[in-house]
Amino acid sequence: MVREQIMEQGKRAREAARALATVSTTEKNEALKAMAAALEARAGEIISANRLDMEAGEAKGLSRALLDRLLLTPERVAEMAGGLRELAALPDPVGEVVRMWTRPNGLQIGQLRVPLGVVGIIYEARPNVTVDAAGLCLKTGNAVLLRGGSEAIHSNQAISAVISEAAVVAGMPGGAIQLVQTTDREAVNVMLRMNEYLDVLIPRGGSGLIRTVVENASVPVIETGVGNCHVYVDQGADLEMAERIIINAKTQRPGVCNAMETLLVHSQEAVELLPGLGKALSAKGVELRGCPRTREILPEIKEATEEDWMTEYLDLILAIKVVDNLTEALDHIDTYGTRHSEAIVTRDYNRARTFLQSVDAAAVYVNASTRFTDGFQYGFGAEIGISTQKLHARGPMGLEALTTIKYIVYGDGQIRQ
Amino acid sequence: MVREQIMEQGKRAREAARALATVSTTEKNEALKAMAAALEARAGEIISANRLDMEAGEAKGLSRALLDRLLLTPERVAEMAGGLRELAALPDPVGEVVRMWTRPNGLQIGQLRVPLGVVGIIYEARPNVTVDAAGLCLKTGNAVLLRGGSEAIHSNQAISAVISEAAVVAGMPGGAIQLVQTTDREAVNVMLRMNEYLDVLIPRGGSGLIRTVVENASVPVIETGVGNCHVYVDQGADLEMAERIIINAKTQRPGVCNAMETLLVHSQEAVELLPGLGKALSAKGVELRGCPRTREILPEIKEATEEDWMTEYLDLILAIKVVDNLTEALDHIDTYGTRHSEAIVTRDYNRARTFLQSVDAAAVYVNASTRFTDGFQYGFGAEIGISTQKLHARGPMGLEALTTIKYIVYGDGQIRQ
Repeated sequence: MVREQIMEQGKRAREAARALATVSTTEKNEALKAMAAALEARAGEIISANRLDMEAGEAKGLSRALLDRLLLTPERVAEMAGGLRELAALPDPVGEVVRMWTRPNGLQIGQLRVPLGVVGIIYEARPNVTVDAAGLCLKTGNAVLLRGGSEAIHSNQAISAVISEAAVVAGMPGGAIQLVQTTDREAVNVMLRMNEYLDVLIPRGGSGLIRTVVENASVPVIETGVGNCHVYVDQGADLEMAERIIINAKTQRPGVCNAMETLLVHSQEAVELLPGLGKALSAKGVELRGCPRTREILPEIKEATEEDWMTEYLDLILAIKVVDNLTEALDHIDTYGTRHSEAIVTRDYNRARTFLQSVDAAAVYVNASTRFTDGFQYGFGAEIGISTQKLHARGPMGLEALTTIKYIVYGDGQIRQ
Repeated sequence: MVREQIMEQGKRAREAARALATVSTTEKNEALKAMAAALEARAGEIISANRLDMEAGEAKGLSRALLDRLLLTPERVAEMAGGLRELAALPDPVGEVVRMWTRPNGLQIGQLRVPLGVVGIIYEARPNVTVDAAGLCLKTGNAVLLRGGSEAIHSNQAISAVISEAAVVAGMPGGAIQLVQTTDREAVNVMLRMNEYLDVLIPRGGSGLIRTVVENASVPVIETGVGNCHVYVDQGADLEMAERIIINAKTQRPGVCNAMETLLVHSQEAVELLPGLGKALSAKGVELRGCPRTREILPEIKEATEEDWMTEYLDLILAIKVVDNLTEALDHIDTYGTRHSEAIVTRDYNRARTFLQSVDAAAVYVNASTRFTDGFQYGFGAEIGISTQKLHARGPMGLEALTTIKYIVYGDGQIRQ
């Protein structure tokens, strides 16, 4: 029953994708603006629906943090609408001929950028993802099948009804934006193996969700998320700069994937750097955990265990390890890093180069905070997520990550010899 | 036991990949040439090992065609060596900075092309894939874990021993080229879920193998292969050109994925085209199967069933359907095509454009044979396979498909606001 419903939605999405592939940029942008206007005009409806989710969440004893993520206010609805208008203003990647060349036999071969087709998004609490993901997919000519968390089901139903109706009125095909209506977990299992109708699955949420999707999907997945990021302070580094970068990477927004989790310090800088840094971090509420050599300098802090090197805290906790050289730092990053964002603070040309070349991660920094790994910070104007895999897209994903290419070939009767 | 062996190989491959990522182009090319020389010098060994596989294959009653694929001769070994030398002569995609830009805060952000890391290849009978895949991976700085078919195990063991030894002598890290030594099927199951050590899996072989890998792998997969390709002859097309293209697409090499399987003909051209074409195809040994309207013109041929529209014959069989317009042709292709290669023969500007834009396939042709979908024909100088998925790579895959990018970011102390 659930299976049939979802398959039916997949089929409609596939049909919508076929129609969307040839919709013009202007039409798509008009639809995005109409969706924004509808969100504002019908904010009351959305907030009433959200109240049901909030009440259920409170009754269920959801944490403050989760309830705050779930909450919709007139301001937050206006922000969602603003996001759609910003998307409308961005260039459309679809339709670009990336390159075109002529073969000796006269065949002209081009790579045309086209939508992926149907995108499946499986996400957790935040209802703003519903608008965000629908907007990104529509902008790039993709149909989307959205599967939100059960905590936000009423909010998501209200939002998706508002925006999908507005899109249809603006001339988009029905089925371009669809929400899975049931909270039955079976729906996810069906989506994971719906290769016929889904071209890609993007999980957005905690590591448990992402693991489930990666391990069980036969549909291609873009893995996002986990970031166990390091900053390495090299011998001879500018220690003021190091402190500024460390405090930013750890405390500017500790709950996100590009925040620093472990600090690596060259042994010759540890004595000078750590006491002041330790105070500054403690003043910001950061709990420190150190290796034995760190604790010789900061005896008051807890000992870091193997577990600490492996943990993405997503919290005001920092592990610190003293190392004797760059190689030791690189080995630590290779062993415990999750190939997300890694930084070195250095004045040395060769070690900067070695770090950039050797570290296997989506983003590698010299003398800058890991917090910059972000589609907006990179200048993409939008972000679908941060890919931690190597296929298709790596690092911050802008609109292009929701497209593929097809070869278009112009001939005048060529046959193969 | 099998599991531990394979995991150990994966671990060695991961270590080798880390070392390979910073090996220079010159060193990689020298290693490829050394591997080529070693193949030639030790051809006798390889051919002796192949004889064991041939004898076992004959005893097992393998078909002529399979035995021919399995067979190694001095000429075939020389061809494999030649392939490695050609690879050595190609440009190295690794190390290119694809683009680089500066943000308003002064951060300089670049996309550096890097190896994927560790590539797993699961393939069937042909032992030449062992050399081919190892060469492509080494050229692009990837470690490779090869899993060939049990029919070719002795050949593959001999070949991989020769080339991996030569690579190590030439300075490549041990573990860069490894063959799975057991023919136990459990080895494949382990590889499919070895996310820790494998960055990508590429299955090369029949549709059964590819389906198994796609359905069961948690490691990201690049799907290659199945091609149910069409040629559509439009109203007003140059029928001589159409006949030339059809004969080429069907008969030049019928057993490959870019060969045509179904012909779609506009009803206004069918009467003129089909009788002569039917004779020409029959003369080439092609069996025709037609829709009822085709059989009004060619009453002697078999009726095509729903099954025919769905079948990738990979053989001298052609299904023919008469359609009344482009829309009907597009619908047929959308319903039965496998999104591989599709062609229109036309003189009409607007219908050529519509076909190019509407058909969802890796390669779409106007007035040329579908047989051109090939890395060498496209000018890539090499081919890993033809991707029929949309993520990462689509259509013929050259060396670039075995690479990814990482962001390298140069700062001077930037922190996020």
